[in-house]
Amino acid sequence: MTANGALRVAVLGASGYTGAELLRLAADHAGVEIAALTAERRAGEPVGAAHPHLAHLGLPDMVAIDRVDWSGVDAAFCCLPHGMAQEAVAGLPSHVRIVDLSADFRLRDAATYARWYGGKHRAPSLQKEAVYGLTEIRRDRVRTARLVANPGCYTTAAELPLIPCLEEGLIETSGIVIDAKSGVSGAGRQAGESGLHTEVSEGVHAYGVAGHRHAPEIEQELGEAAGEAVTVTFTPHLLPMNRGILATIYVTLRDGAEAGDLRAALARRYRDEPFVRLTPQGQAPATRHVRGSNLCLIGVFADRAPGRAILVSALDNLVKGASGQALQNMNVMAGFDETAGLPRVAVFP
Amino acid sequence: MTANGALRVAVLGASGYTGAELLRLAADHAGVEIAALTAERRAGEPVGAAHPHLAHLGLPDMVAIDRVDWSGVDAAFCCLPHGMAQEAVAGLPSHVRIVDLSADFRLRDAATYARWYGGKHRAPSLQKEAVYGLTEIRRDRVRTARLVANPGCYTTAAELPLIPCLEEGLIETSGIVIDAKSGVSGAGRQAGESGLHTEVSEGVHAYGVAGHRHAPEIEQELGEAAGEAVTVTFTPHLLPMNRGILATIYVTLRDGAEAGDLRAALARRYRDEPFVRLTPQGQAPATRHVRGSNLCLIGVFADRAPGRAILVSALDNLVKGASGQALQNMNVMAGFDETAGLPRVAVFP
Amino acid sequence: MTANGALRVAVLGASGYTGAELLRLAADHAGVEIAALTAERRAGEPVGAAHPHLAHLGLPDMVAIDRVDWSGVDAAFCCLPHGMAQEAVAGLPSHVRIVDLSADFRLRDAATYARWYGGKHRAPSLQKEAVYGLTEIRRDRVRTARLVANPGCYTTAAELPLIPCLEEGLIETSGIVIDAKSGVSGAGRQAGESGLHTEVSEGVHAYGVAGHRHAPEIEQELGEAAGEAVTVTFTPHLLPMNRGILATIYVTLRDGAEAGDLRAALARRYRDEPFVRLTPQGQAPATRHVRGSNLCLIGVFADRAPGRAILVSALDNLVKGASGQALQNMNVMAGFDETAGLPRVAVFP
Amino acid sequence: MTANGALRVAVLGASGYTGAELLRLAADHAGVEIAALTAERRAGEPVGAAHPHLAHLGLPDMVAIDRVDWSGVDAAFCCLPHGMAQEAVAGLPSHVRIVDLSADFRLRDAATYARWYGGKHRAPSLQKEAVYGLTEIRRDRVRTARLVANPGCYTTAAELPLIPCLEEGLIETSGIVIDAKSGVSGAGRQAGESGLHTEVSEGVHAYGVAGHRHAPEIEQELGEAAGEAVTVTFTPHLLPMNRGILATIYVTLRDGAEAGDLRAALARRYRDEPFVRLTPQGQAPATRHVRGSNLCLIGVFADRAPGRAILVSALDNLVKGASGQALQNMNVMAGFDETAGLPRVAVFP
Repeated sequence: MTANGALRVAVLGASGYTGAELLRLAADHAGVEIAALTAERRAGEPVGAAHPHLAHLGLPDMVAIDRVDWSGVDAAFCCLPHGMAQEAVAGLPSHVRIVDLSADFRLRDAATYARWYGGKHRAPSLQKEAVYGLTEIRRDRVRTARLVANPGCYTTAAELPLIPCLEEGLIETSGIVIDAKSGVSGAGRQAGESGLHTEVSEGVHAYGVAGHRHAPEIEQELGEAAGEAVTVTFTPHLLPMNRGILATIYVTLRDGAEAGDLRAALARRYRDEPFVRLTPQGQAPATRHVRGSNLCLIGVFADRAPGRAILVSALDNLVKGASGQALQNMNVMAGFDETAGLPRVAVFP
Repeated sequence: MTANGALRVAVLGASGYTGAELLRLAADHAGVEIAALTAERRAGEPVGAAHPHLAHLGLPDMVAIDRVDWSGVDAAFCCLPHGMAQEAVAGLPSHVRIVDLSADFRLRDAATYARWYGGKHRAPSLQKEAVYGLTEIRRDRVRTARLVANPGCYTTAAELPLIPCLEEGLIETSGIVIDAKSGVSGAGRQAGESGLHTEVSEGVHAYGVAGHRHAPEIEQELGEAAGEAVTVTFTPHLLPMNRGILATIYVTLRDGAEAGDLRAALARRYRDEPFVRLTPQGQAPATRHVRGSNLCLIGVFADRAPGRAILVSALDNLVKGASGQALQNMNVMAGFDETAGLPRVAVFP
Repeated sequence: MTANGALRVAVLGASGYTGAELLRLAADHAGVEIAALTAERRAGEPVGAAHPHLAHLGLPDMVAIDRVDWSGVDAAFCCLPHGMAQEAVAGLPSHVRIVDLSADFRLRDAATYARWYGGKHRAPSLQKEAVYGLTEIRRDRVRTARLVANPGCYTTAAELPLIPCLEEGLIETSGIVIDAKSGVSGAGRQAGESGLHTEVSEGVHAYGVAGHRHAPEIEQELGEAAGEAVTVTFTPHLLPMNRGILATIYVTLRDGAEAGDLRAALARRYRDEPFVRLTPQGQAPATRHVRGSNLCLIGVFADRAPGRAILVSALDNLVKGASGQALQNMNVMAGFDETAGLPRVAVFP
Repeated sequence: MTANGALRVAVLGASGYTGAELLRLAADHAGVEIAALTAERRAGEPVGAAHPHLAHLGLPDMVAIDRVDWSGVDAAFCCLPHGMAQEAVAGLPSHVRIVDLSADFRLRDAATYARWYGGKHRAPSLQKEAVYGLTEIRRDRVRTARLVANPGCYTTAAELPLIPCLEEGLIETSGIVIDAKSGVSGAGRQAGESGLHTEVSEGVHAYGVAGHRHAPEIEQELGEAAGEAVTVTFTPHLLPMNRGILATIYVTLRDGAEAGDLRAALARRYRDEPFVRLTPQGQAPATRHVRGSNLCLIGVFADRAPGRAILVSALDNLVKGASGQALQNMNVMAGFDETAGLPRVAVFP
């Protein structure tokens, strides 16, 4: 803590998009002071070299991670890629509280991790200790966690609408279809040829059909909510936009339940939540209405097919789907107002 | 017919996007001569006033429909909006063969039409006579038809992959989920505020959830293929691109069937079709690979959830989903090479 | 003023994009309370009907302008279209201070106004009284103004780089070429066919060549800076993006002057300005680095052609080019911190 | 030549965008047969691996350049990057006629080449021999050339409008400002981070200000047309679109000349040209009206500033700005109809 009580924060892997987004949000957060920024390839460079839009914020230069003086750091956001975060986090001193934005600590089962991420976890005890940080659902555990595994963008979009419905037993645990549409920033700044404007704009395609790594993460959390194993059909699509995830979710209602019951369950669950909002009856959520904000919008629809319902959720993958939720978790951990630094109004158009 | 055997064609409603697309394709079709163009609001104007990119083609000016000399016209494409086409088509002399691109003649059941299109059909005998023109499936009936009802863009994308699977009894007729993603041109040139760049770009939303008019059209054709009534869950989405439809279709396999059986059925059915192609195993179709062409790509995937499969189709809504299929149908009707004037290579990037 | 000292503000014409943007910014401005919103066609509707992304802010419903109780209003932003603002502003009680975002009060010469805007001004005395609100240049006059004419988006982008160079006599007053590129939101929400995604995306064109209404506004302000009449060549272009203006400005250097002198003059002029920033030597401004913020970036380049230089400026047309500068002006008028409510970090990517 | 008289063509560097575009165009060219495709990194792969949209054309696999049997090849398109083309071209047997799409043979002056491309030319005799292939201007020399240097995309857009005006002495040779706007495909498929959708969409920036390599190429050709040295101010901009170049060109009229004289000169020069068209008086060219076609549109405008005029040109950088003009040149060289395989209608919207 600084003399004025500000949390001294390090951002590991500051040269990518989630790092930049954290810095954008932190710039309007009175309780956070950026104490250190790391970037391996760009060590020694000023932030403006990687992020011209942040050049004027007076931030420290980016350094190699082993050059950070951790005595001056209270907390860290880890924005490193999957597979690299686990060792970096394992190397941090114990007084540093961490929100990790990678997938490294999200899966609690070591075997599931090994199967989907191609190898043994290299920090298994931390994997056990980590708290899965879907803030609205796990707020109490986040508060006291040392290490929070920030949920994936797709998973946040799937779990926020589905968990209350499963907890209340309103929908079947089988046959859940999650058709998700994402903007390009989800692929990160190292996207390569597949992220080129020429390869993305004016087109759409599915990818990772029946094999995307967010499926086991979704199933883990839905299973916990349902009290039984859940298998989902999850298909992500790449859309010609920078930000935004829309999840269209098809569910089978349990006997007697109606779409209105799902709506009521969601309304109850999120009544006092600042960042989760139900759209009015009949109005479908749009990602443009959450762009740049930490909001998640949810719509509920009765299907024409009897006994079925459709849930639609929208969020900004870089905010509620990544850096925004990370800051929200840090706010909870540090005892700040949970909304500090988090935009509640979209930048539209 | 002209002296050199060219079909003399009129385009009704030439000022919109499907009209323009027909003119683009016809410009490279040696057997078609544009004899008349109609447009009500723009009657008297040259084509270039509505379509600068067609100004140099030496086309006739647009006129009011009652100014056309039908004795010089062999065939017509009707590009008028839903609800306006039926009376225009009913007023054409009997020697003119017609492909109607609107929804007016697609539904064979008068009551279904009235329920979804808000009123009684005003040309019920033509409605009965019209042949539904999904060319690959109905080629024989199209050949001799006087009036072809050109399928909708969403419906073409849904029916081409599903019909062979249903015909062979490989999938259940219930629980079919069609999650469709469309570019903006599908809304036409009178889209209004909802079609503005500011309202569409950098975002995605679902619309007409559980209530889109293409659902009964899909169900009619799938029902015929299955030999029993079919109810589908159909959700269209608006994407920030001009052209393209991607349909991600979730199906339940009948006992014993596997995803490979679907692939085999589709391969058999479309082996000799110039415009329907299966993507290689594991490769998902992308709309950018059909942009501007008359192709429909289909991919088949086994789902992780046992007993389920995923079909993905991609087409250009203005070509195979509208004007291209219309010209393909006219080629069949006129005895031309079915591929004449129809691009088989996408404009990419 | 409210009991806690907040300025009670009305937004006239709240259903468009500049109105929405003002409400977005005001939501984070502790000193501003939205007291009334007007919209003629949508009178009686909640804000969320026009702007779903603002539905949750607890704002008053939109009403017809004659239904506003002005005794509860201290200040107004007028977001009405050109030609409609003058009468609305003339009808406001004298205690209400106004920032008008239309072009109605920007031109001080009545004859110039009549020539470019097609008719006699209907509030000529207000036209004389109005202060042109390019904040960085006119701050002192803005402070005490009752009516501020907020500059156009193109003009702000042209004037901020050019005025210091002209004031210091570093460039010729003739031969100035301003090649400007704008996003679509500048055309407003009633853009019609020309603003459709299909007509804008994947393309670029010039418009209003040698005849755009911002030219006389630019010339008025540059002339005042230069102390002599200035004629500019100004060509706007429409680009496939929602927000942003980039102005590439070609100037002839006065004898002895070099590009470095322009840079030095700009650096001096804007050293203490929070929202105007020079890019580092050799780095061209990009609109994506100001998106959503109130920043204006300026770059200075020596041309290869001897005796010539190139200035490039970038801003967000809805923020520094409209609602942001309007709020900045209101901050000055009300004695608030000039940066209150105004984002200084772009939303990127 | 094949038995049926088709030209047997090789495409060197077939895995990029200009290679793909050549293959798209050649697919509709009855006189061309693709005999060989080369790609270094992807040698051994089928075309569909690099270009799924070309997978169904029955093309030969891509091979390393040293694996080509040149006895079966009549002509080659060289789509290799700048700097790599010169050695590849130098290594081709003398019976193979070549259109090189790189910049390697465009500059006739060895010193100018060395200054702008960072080193001595490695095939100086070929550099001398090469014919600059702006087809409409150099058709006669192209006809008999063995090696044609295909013009750059920016340069084609600048030269087509300017050359006739300079030839007729209607405009000053100094003070020409070319403000050019390009889509992303101009950067090629190896664009890297700067070509990512996230870095390009929803934004615009200038690049290579006062230092782009197309400037000396433009000056070379304009100088030849004018009969004296010409220095231009040339500023390229990157726009969020895939295809298209718009050049807005500001010129000073020679004594007595008017904008109408420029229009008349261009009309005369291009009257019989199939691919160069003047837009109607007052109508600005748009890149969307040439997308996918080999057209170049030119507009002429009187400026408000006396004695000045504005020329605007639009073309598709991958067609008339690269592969289309290359095929046009090959048509001239081979004695084919010059328009064979070249689309004259844009794909819009």
